[in-house]
Amino acid sequence: MAGLHDLSKCAVHTMTNKPWSLAECCGHYASAGLGGVSIWRNTVAPEEGGIGLKEATKIVKGSGLAVPAYVRGGFFAAADPSSRQASIDHNKLMLDEAAALGAEQVVLVVGAVPGMPLSEARKQVTDGIAACLDHAAQVGVKMSIEPLHPMYAGDKSCINRMAEARQICEQLRSPWLGIAVDVYHVWWDPDLEHEIKLAGKQNTLFGFHLCDWRLNTRHMLTDRGLIGDGCIDIRCICRLVEDAGFKGFNEIEVFSEQYWAMDQAQYLLLITERYSRLFRR
Amino acid sequence: MAGLHDLSKCAVHTMTNKPWSLAECCGHYASAGLGGVSIWRNTVAPEEGGIGLKEATKIVKGSGLAVPAYVRGGFFAAADPSSRQASIDHNKLMLDEAAALGAEQVVLVVGAVPGMPLSEARKQVTDGIAACLDHAAQVGVKMSIEPLHPMYAGDKSCINRMAEARQICEQLRSPWLGIAVDVYHVWWDPDLEHEIKLAGKQNTLFGFHLCDWRLNTRHMLTDRGLIGDGCIDIRCICRLVEDAGFKGFNEIEVFSEQYWAMDQAQYLLLITERYSRLFRR
Repeated sequence: MAGLHDLSKCAVHTMTNKPWSLAECCGHYASAGLGGVSIWRNTVAPEEGGIGLKEATKIVKGSGLAVPAYVRGGFFAAADPSSRQASIDHNKLMLDEAAALGAEQVVLVVGAVPGMPLSEARKQVTDGIAACLDHAAQVGVKMSIEPLHPMYAGDKSCINRMAEARQICEQLRSPWLGIAVDVYHVWWDPDLEHEIKLAGKQNTLFGFHLCDWRLNTRHMLTDRGLIGDGCIDIRCICRLVEDAGFKGFNEIEVFSEQYWAMDQAQYLLLITERYSRLFRR
Repeated sequence: MAGLHDLSKCAVHTMTNKPWSLAECCGHYASAGLGGVSIWRNTVAPEEGGIGLKEATKIVKGSGLAVPAYVRGGFFAAADPSSRQASIDHNKLMLDEAAALGAEQVVLVVGAVPGMPLSEARKQVTDGIAACLDHAAQVGVKMSIEPLHPMYAGDKSCINRMAEARQICEQLRSPWLGIAVDVYHVWWDPDLEHEIKLAGKQNTLFGFHLCDWRLNTRHMLTDRGLIGDGCIDIRCICRLVEDAGFKGFNEIEVFSEQYWAMDQAQYLLLITERYSRLFRR
């Protein structure tokens, strides 16, 4: 699909339309002319309430949508070695599932442990990722570190800026390891332009997530804004990413109680309108 | 006051005990053996509901407490030049008031403007501070840039790490300009140790604020934790600050609906217990 409202490079995360099943997401996204769907594991894995990998794969392949990302792996930092090994095993399983679904990458929320120094957590994360890279290469699925906003440093991610994600990429040097840039997490960073350029040169720009930062955020997890709701200069960051050579999907990832309460078809229409407006002119 | 529970280097911000008047704060803090009170302008300025500078000064001087900080100046970034000039004038007024109160420093929350690029806001902040420095020297009151957590970059502060505060200090090079380090805002920063050491060498460590980061933060403005409530390794940061040569007050600054709802005398007892436990051993 081309023209004024070209949505072929737009993908939506299933979690954005949380009330919908995977089949509903894929059906609506394909009908709307979107190019891709990024799949959250809760829609797939039976132990998380999903429909099973076989059925999920059938739905996704049938939809004709690309799958830029399978979300979310990571959580490598843990207090004891057996939990760390369990995380590594789980990430390998996710890489297998991603391969079956035809996903380009598994996105990593790397983890953090309350009470553990962030420097120690960062070491454990690096070791955990390193232990998965051969498997990623075998199944042909990339892994992308998603730096999370510093407000999640307590228990979700010890990697809070692109610079720290880059340092791990530089240390492990693998074509299967890169960075997922989410405007929500990194927009405030004075080094953002520099780091995006650098990631372009290092071929580590694997993913790009779009949402917005509401000025009066009511909840730290479930009150993200849709493009245009907040204060992020998204157009500027899009340009930086494009100039750095990024050719992947623009993924819409919004966690929002407000939007989840809406009629999801109406919401999807709003998403595509906001997206199209962003890339017009 | 000395001994096991030496509170002589402890100061409390009046906003920590928001339900109390300035007179109540000073009375209770002095009785508890605290060394200082950091004064928020709402307790002083009549237009903000305060008792007036003359009366405030009498109370503070009468209490025998030191005043490490007068809070909070800044907000230099603004869309139009007349607002920027108004901010500069207001900061000069606050420096005058601080001098009358015997405060060591005015703490700066530097400001940010939704829709204005953070790089532009940072320039305006630097210019605004520069315009106040002669006045600071004249009245003998220091100004300290307080880097605010990145979650406040939308509309409160375009300076979100010690590194960016240091860059302004390096640019303006004045003995009257330094940094106030609040563990809440900077604890997650991988460069924290480096920046604290550097601030020690550059003689810019002007203030040190203590509170904690609650893992499940319920509100981005008014749900800070008291020492021990959260995940910050406060003892480690205290050691870094001490090793960097900091000789000032340890200021307790907590905004918390939960604690404001408590009996404030009981709360102050809890504050001094937590503080004493921190510095024991």
